[in-house]
Amino acid sequence: MTKITAAITGVHGYVPEDVLSNEELSKIVDTNDEWITSRTGIKERHILKGEGLGTSVMAIEAVKGLLAKTNTKPEEIDLLICATISPDHFFPSTANIICDKVGLPHIASYDLAAACSGFINALTTGAMFIESGRYKKVIVVGADKMSSIVDYTDRTTCVLFGDGAGAVLLEANTEGFGIQDFILKSDGSGANYLIQEGGGSVHPPTHETIDAKMHYIRQEGQSVYKFAVTRMADASAEIMERNELTGDDIAFLVPHQANKRIIDATANRMGIGSDKVMLNIHKYGNTTAATIPLCLWDYESQLKKGDNLILAAFGGGFTWGSVYLKWAY
Amino acid sequence: MTKITAAITGVHGYVPEDVLSNEELSKIVDTNDEWITSRTGIKERHILKGEGLGTSVMAIEAVKGLLAKTNTKPEEIDLLICATISPDHFFPSTANIICDKVGLPHIASYDLAAACSGFINALTTGAMFIESGRYKKVIVVGADKMSSIVDYTDRTTCVLFGDGAGAVLLEANTEGFGIQDFILKSDGSGANYLIQEGGGSVHPPTHETIDAKMHYIRQEGQSVYKFAVTRMADASAEIMERNELTGDDIAFLVPHQANKRIIDATANRMGIGSDKVMLNIHKYGNTTAATIPLCLWDYESQLKKGDNLILAAFGGGFTWGSVYLKWAY
Repeated sequence: MTKITAAITGVHGYVPEDVLSNEELSKIVDTNDEWITSRTGIKERHILKGEGLGTSVMAIEAVKGLLAKTNTKPEEIDLLICATISPDHFFPSTANIICDKVGLPHIASYDLAAACSGFINALTTGAMFIESGRYKKVIVVGADKMSSIVDYTDRTTCVLFGDGAGAVLLEANTEGFGIQDFILKSDGSGANYLIQEGGGSVHPPTHETIDAKMHYIRQEGQSVYKFAVTRMADASAEIMERNELTGDDIAFLVPHQANKRIIDATANRMGIGSDKVMLNIHKYGNTTAATIPLCLWDYESQLKKGDNLILAAFGGGFTWGSVYLKWAY
Repeated sequence: MTKITAAITGVHGYVPEDVLSNEELSKIVDTNDEWITSRTGIKERHILKGEGLGTSVMAIEAVKGLLAKTNTKPEEIDLLICATISPDHFFPSTANIICDKVGLPHIASYDLAAACSGFINALTTGAMFIESGRYKKVIVVGADKMSSIVDYTDRTTCVLFGDGAGAVLLEANTEGFGIQDFILKSDGSGANYLIQEGGGSVHPPTHETIDAKMHYIRQEGQSVYKFAVTRMADASAEIMERNELTGDDIAFLVPHQANKRIIDATANRMGIGSDKVMLNIHKYGNTTAATIPLCLWDYESQLKKGDNLILAAFGGGFTWGSVYLKWAY
């Protein structure tokens, strides 16, 4: 019996039109372009404006584009997973809404939440449905409207995040392309360093939680940075080691885009130069679950069949991990 | 190569101490025991009381008990998935918090949202990690603190829901026990019939959304009922048909506990008597993602190795589906 692997056979992304530059932010909060750029690598981010527009609006565009460019008929898709921490609602799931709006039939669909590691968790999950032989084609979406939970009076967080969505098509492959290995980790003891305190069952929304700004992202930047630098590099080094890969074997690192310094540290640990690092944080900021598919989208034309990619992420939870895959086209 | 299946090898549940009876509800809203019982089958539900206590509090108890009764060492677990629509927070994930509090090491963990079908989606997802051969032991939790999103002035919804958590251990099996087949479906065109409108990226919490009661469950009961009766029965009949099962072959139907009438209609369609239907809705009400593992927990002593079970659910999204499994112990 030939082993079935799950290969990415298409990628598409979407970012909203409106751009929020460092310069514009410096008019709202006490910050400046030099400070933001040197510490994070971010120059601008895209923001979804408009009353009543949720994360699904962007995800729908990404999935529509993905189906079109891969010539995939909606009825071929077995499952759609949407990784997000800013779903349209707690329920119904954003994945259900996406399927309805892009004309996917009554397929399996659900949301998955693992903060900035959401996409790598969803990608490997989608891959499992294919490796098991149960499903043939799966769409994995990473999408977040971070502007809906960012406090634009908090200069330590509002400069970091942007809105966006990316989607990949996963297909069964019998030639060995696609996902080879993955490492997924979590550590809930880091929960309080990067958190949206209110809104869930611990602190349901009240007038008090709103006045206390409990529905915004709160981050202890330095602690998160320290964990991120170590964990993301560790997971990337470990997956290379156990697959006997050296820096020379890697075509690209596809890192979660939270901070350029964390990305540099990971690349350094992997022994690869900056020419092999996908980077678009300057354009989009941290779009949480969307960063990795947006990178693949931006760099798609530079990828060749058989290229070894390492995807790596770290984020709230804490959650982190890495995926080793062979590009399939 | 022997085929690997994913078998449930243990189940545990937890419901909070405080009980809210129909009689007590009839003092809060204009309702009565006879009306509730005849229309839903519910007599009482358990409620998690106490400031700042979220869904994880119950899930932690369920997982602790599961590890103890199955004699499983925390370091044996590869992945924990928490199905919930009332997570502690949008992030960090409730799964991360559970792992930390029960002493699971830095394993993979994430939340999954598919409303009342959350557990069957999470169960099959966990099973895929095992069928693929990637992981050996997975914990799947279904947990919801519905009281955190119920409007106790709305007599059409507040009688329906309760709080609870259930967890199962999934293990790799080479004797053919465990999950045999599954059907998972969704239809986002039903999104508005059963929804928590506020709180996500479409309507982030504001003083206005709170005054408009947008953070509570809103349900168009009759429409949901109509869809549920058809869809849950369809999925159950379909999975029996394609596995050539008759009513005689089934040991138990394990239905999502939303409404006794929906359950009866499903059993009727499957051609099985009420003695083969797991039912605990009278004690717990609808605990959303927790209903099915709480049923397995209550009926565990009646199950025998090799028993054919059909799990079936329908809920917000809409999402629905069925799972056919052979009990492993």
